[in-house]
Amino acid sequence: MDFSSKLLENAVNEVAQLPGIGKRTALRLVLHILRQPKEQTQTLTSALQIMRNEIKFCISCNNISDEELCEICISAKRNKEIVCVVEDVRDVMAIENTGSFKGIYHVLGGKISPMDGIGPHDLNIEPLVNKVKEGFVKELIFALSSTMEGDTTNFYVYKQIQDCEIAVSTIARGISVGDELEYADEITLGRSILNRIPFESSLKL
Amino acid sequence: MDFSSKLLENAVNEVAQLPGIGKRTALRLVLHILRQPKEQTQTLTSALQIMRNEIKFCISCNNISDEELCEICISAKRNKEIVCVVEDVRDVMAIENTGSFKGIYHVLGGKISPMDGIGPHDLNIEPLVNKVKEGFVKELIFALSSTMEGDTTNFYVYKQIQDCEIAVSTIARGISVGDELEYADEITLGRSILNRIPFESSLKL
Repeated sequence: MDFSSKLLENAVNEVAQLPGIGKRTALRLVLHILRQPKEQTQTLTSALQIMRNEIKFCISCNNISDEELCEICISAKRNKEIVCVVEDVRDVMAIENTGSFKGIYHVLGGKISPMDGIGPHDLNIEPLVNKVKEGFVKELIFALSSTMEGDTTNFYVYKQIQDCEIAVSTIARGISVGDELEYADEITLGRSILNRIPFESSLKL
Repeated sequence: MDFSSKLLENAVNEVAQLPGIGKRTALRLVLHILRQPKEQTQTLTSALQIMRNEIKFCISCNNISDEELCEICISAKRNKEIVCVVEDVRDVMAIENTGSFKGIYHVLGGKISPMDGIGPHDLNIEPLVNKVKEGFVKELIFALSSTMEGDTTNFYVYKQIQDCEIAVSTIARGISVGDELEYADEITLGRSILNRIPFESSLKL
């Protein structure tokens, strides 16, 4: 692309470094910013900067937080003995939105992925293992995505804590609610048959 | 969405105000920024701020520029008597990329669109009319998008300059190069027949 202004080109190049944003989209966004009042740009950029510089991560679960401990870890209503292991903050938000979980979380910050150069030591695994070994946890729920990397990470964590006397579970894989069987992939459908549950207990959900 | 941090929420809300960016995408972008080094955020936000505060618009054609006159208006290689009327800066870039135009541009900054509350006086029409009336222009080429708003704008400008002795043309509408006839819409196909050109002249393109 041929820009008539160096300032415009810089801005577009910076915005285009964000994931999923190509040069064309970046240009559209930047031209939109240019049409807005200057105060709007000020608000946008300072919101980003303040967030980047001042945000904290919960010292217990590694969730994003404004304080040392996040709202979930600090809440008296949550059962601290049930820990749900997730990849990142978005997963915490997704599970919180269901309203189905009353324990606390542990955010790993990613999955073990040798292809991307992410090993176990790049993730927040050790504090989790320590927490389990110190006897604070009664049940660990793996809620990583069901990919090779997710399964590897699950297995890596499991190996380190398998001698501890705690329950370890993983979230159920199966046909989505509302989905038609014929469109489900074979592996999911196969798993949903192997992991079938008593009909009476499905009525209670 | 339920955010565990006010700072995160603010940043997401600001980013989600950009066109075509929903809350989920905004969250993904913001979390990406959070994983990058702080200097990266600094570079991004200052590129946006400097652009917003320091960018100029060419006093002749209203194109984005770092100087008073844009590179195109200042260039000795361009024919200043042929003016291509476009909606915005992206159109200038699109036409420049073709390398087929050696005149100069006039950026209106939008189209007349009563539905969006945009009238002729919100656009950069008057300087164009003046330029024509002062006799600086020999040919005017309308290159607005082929919508009702585009046609209205074309017609509005045309009405103001129709007494001046200049050539007024509009870019050709027709079947895209490489397109199959059967998938073309009726209006485009119809126009491409009405506006057919001598076969010999098509061989020269």
